[in-house]
Amino acid sequence: MLPWRTIIEIEKECDVPVYLQIANSIIQEMKKGRIGPGIKLPGTRQMSEMLEVHRKTLVRAYEELDAQGWIEMRPSKGTFTIKALPEINPRRFYMKTEKRNSFPATTGYSVKINNNIRTPVFTYRNITGFHDGPDVRLMPVKELGRSYKSILSRTVNLRYLSYVETAGVQKFREVLSEYLNSSRGLQTSFENIMITRGSQFGLYLITCVLFSNGQNIIVGEPNYYYADRCFQNAGMRLIRVRVDDMGIDVDAIEKICRKKKIRAVYITSHHHYPTTVTLIASRRIKLLELSEKYGFIIIEDDYDYDFHYLSSPILPLISADQKGMIIYVGTLSKTIAPAIRTGYVVAPPNLLLELTRLRQLMDTQGDPIMELALAEMFSDGEIRRHMKKALHEYHRRRDFVCNLLTQQLSSFIEFRIPDGGLAIWAKFNKDIPLPALTEKLRPQGLILSNGLIHNSGSVSLNSTRMGFAWMNEKEAEIAVGKLIKTIKEKF
Amino acid sequence: MLPWRTIIEIEKECDVPVYLQIANSIIQEMKKGRIGPGIKLPGTRQMSEMLEVHRKTLVRAYEELDAQGWIEMRPSKGTFTIKALPEINPRRFYMKTEKRNSFPATTGYSVKINNNIRTPVFTYRNITGFHDGPDVRLMPVKELGRSYKSILSRTVNLRYLSYVETAGVQKFREVLSEYLNSSRGLQTSFENIMITRGSQFGLYLITCVLFSNGQNIIVGEPNYYYADRCFQNAGMRLIRVRVDDMGIDVDAIEKICRKKKIRAVYITSHHHYPTTVTLIASRRIKLLELSEKYGFIIIEDDYDYDFHYLSSPILPLISADQKGMIIYVGTLSKTIAPAIRTGYVVAPPNLLLELTRLRQLMDTQGDPIMELALAEMFSDGEIRRHMKKALHEYHRRRDFVCNLLTQQLSSFIEFRIPDGGLAIWAKFNKDIPLPALTEKLRPQGLILSNGLIHNSGSVSLNSTRMGFAWMNEKEAEIAVGKLIKTIKEKF
Repeated sequence: MLPWRTIIEIEKECDVPVYLQIANSIIQEMKKGRIGPGIKLPGTRQMSEMLEVHRKTLVRAYEELDAQGWIEMRPSKGTFTIKALPEINPRRFYMKTEKRNSFPATTGYSVKINNNIRTPVFTYRNITGFHDGPDVRLMPVKELGRSYKSILSRTVNLRYLSYVETAGVQKFREVLSEYLNSSRGLQTSFENIMITRGSQFGLYLITCVLFSNGQNIIVGEPNYYYADRCFQNAGMRLIRVRVDDMGIDVDAIEKICRKKKIRAVYITSHHHYPTTVTLIASRRIKLLELSEKYGFIIIEDDYDYDFHYLSSPILPLISADQKGMIIYVGTLSKTIAPAIRTGYVVAPPNLLLELTRLRQLMDTQGDPIMELALAEMFSDGEIRRHMKKALHEYHRRRDFVCNLLTQQLSSFIEFRIPDGGLAIWAKFNKDIPLPALTEKLRPQGLILSNGLIHNSGSVSLNSTRMGFAWMNEKEAEIAVGKLIKTIKEKF
Repeated sequence: MLPWRTIIEIEKECDVPVYLQIANSIIQEMKKGRIGPGIKLPGTRQMSEMLEVHRKTLVRAYEELDAQGWIEMRPSKGTFTIKALPEINPRRFYMKTEKRNSFPATTGYSVKINNNIRTPVFTYRNITGFHDGPDVRLMPVKELGRSYKSILSRTVNLRYLSYVETAGVQKFREVLSEYLNSSRGLQTSFENIMITRGSQFGLYLITCVLFSNGQNIIVGEPNYYYADRCFQNAGMRLIRVRVDDMGIDVDAIEKICRKKKIRAVYITSHHHYPTTVTLIASRRIKLLELSEKYGFIIIEDDYDYDFHYLSSPILPLISADQKGMIIYVGTLSKTIAPAIRTGYVVAPPNLLLELTRLRQLMDTQGDPIMELALAEMFSDGEIRRHMKKALHEYHRRRDFVCNLLTQQLSSFIEFRIPDGGLAIWAKFNKDIPLPALTEKLRPQGLILSNGLIHNSGSVSLNSTRMGFAWMNEKEAEIAVGKLIKTIKEKF
């Protein structure tokens, strides 16, 4: 008999379960040849006594070896190592001399460079800065992890692991529909909701299905960078309309409509991006009327409706749309986490059907396990509770940062205190050019966007979004301190 | 003092933590008005004695109320309910009479119907059937759930919750690169890998970046439905080339190249989809040569390389590509679960850069938590072990189902035993039309694809993919039994 006690190493303190350690040891020895092919293994009782482990552990180890194809169990004869090792020997189909030594450095065909979209710049947000987004430390990630694991562990959910509804799991769409109806005054059913990978995915799908080369779309001046690029990528002509203290200038939109065929108007009604201005009621009513009169589609991107600090958000335009002119786009990415890309499109079913048709060619479907986990977190109140807490904290942070800036930087920047959202729209004095300033801040470990993506024409706004939600009070104090010092010393 | 003991209901058996039950009770009573504004709450010690819970529980309950904005803690004065309830009162911006009672049934603008792509048909796979896919019961979902939760619970990973690399988390790309190098003979680094939402997402991105209206692409006859639709959606002209027992006819491709400019050739080299045929070595070499000579791109969709039963898979074409002519597309969806949409594109960095640029407009980025979880499962051997086990079981199931079909249905269907993959390509006799057969099977709770999506022209192949991996032996026996009975009785 082989010296099993020596061959099989068991570390009781190790993370790997003991049965797997036993199975892995036997596999290693079979690969090395110390345990030959066709050898009879001791029975589980005998082996468990030798190794001083529970017999059940041995049964599991043998089952593992059998499942992986290393042993054969012959009824009433015993357990034998298999005759041919289940190792894989891939076949090369070319001469070895032909083989290259490294991966080709570049394509053998030409690839058109798309200068229209900037190269992804990524900064892990583990440094201080006026990042425009929620604080990852306040996110309900433990709850999400627990919920995700729990959904995966229930046998009844196995059916969601294969192919599911392209528009998203019905249960989640139902929960979301209820949430949108109660928080935004809508009258949707789940059939009006499509789940997307963040709101950007919704914009992209809408653009592909509804828009074509050469059509006109009205956007704000300035406007959300990635929305502009999305429309331009489809060949649309952007017509820019001024945004003032009351939101986008609807009279200007009317004038354009009298002269040109307009396919759509893109708005960020609750807090205009990037300026944070709320579109006032009278303009909302007029915009809806114009939409019906001139037949243009309104894309209402309500990316931060849930972040408002006056306890009286203004209902979205779609709550009053009787003719189906509005497509409403929203996101949970800022509520849960930007990396958990979960957004939605609200629209009549005939549009959603076409969006799902196209979606099959893109990513086939969403992540049903995540959708079920989020549905559960909505149903048991976890998400609402989290939102309330986060909102309360961001409200504090907004006040804190705005106070600091007003007290110490009012001669260098201009800004209004935003009613909601996670950032301030700040205009810097001309003699403090943002690109130069941000370059001086970066070596100090302080991130501030240089604001260049907000310039739609050749005129520099010298303005940027300064996120206040990302930092706690102490961090904000340090960040504002560095900003002031740098401005005073260098400009 | 208020009768706190009566007001606050605690159920110790309940799933909701006690501190949350206390906080929720107080919120409810504040909403009802039983606890008024500006009321001083008992101290945590006093309250904990009244409610007979640990004082720490009370501290957490008060913290929760404070975080949600229901109470104020005034240093050395005590804890008070706030004066204005933090309830939200959204503002309507239109007259109530204008308000509609239901969501618009249809859009107010016209939506073009895309008859090119079929409407999503979805069947939850909780019934028996020859489904073409892996068995959800064999998937490492418990391990995945554990890993996902564990990644989310580590503070060091918080930085992955915000915005990350568009091409996928570097750690995962490194692990995947190693895996592809060792299993497929490649020489990639992480810079040659982009993570996508399933292989379909890769195909879509490649199509948008590299192809344009009116260009020619060669595909198999028959070919994978969603690849065809993806290319057609971009306006490409499909040129179909016969697939025989040795794979796609490369001589026919050469003839076409002599006459026409070909932008790309799409192949499923390891097991042609849908016919399961492997492209032979000599044709692989010639196809690569033609690609360099005529400058066409090869898209190598290797969707099921990991599922082979001869222990000697043939290395993909990209392992011999020295000029960067090949774009390799793969997926983990069949290894982990179809619903966990994780695929990858392997290509030189200049192409990947353009793919990531476009991706920013689509879904911004992937799911970094899932990517880290999968990276961990690769690193600790969990995925390889799982693949080995699953492969072993699918091998058994293939043999079992093929035996049943050969013994009992050989006069009605024609098929070859596939070297790998999860399905058999079966041609049914002309007098058993598949659409009629499948309609008769469905009421018996048995799913078989009618094969219509494999017909590229007007000629019916009367062939379909019969998945064998989805069912265990007992289920397969029942399914094949029903199939035989129905064929014999009805045709």
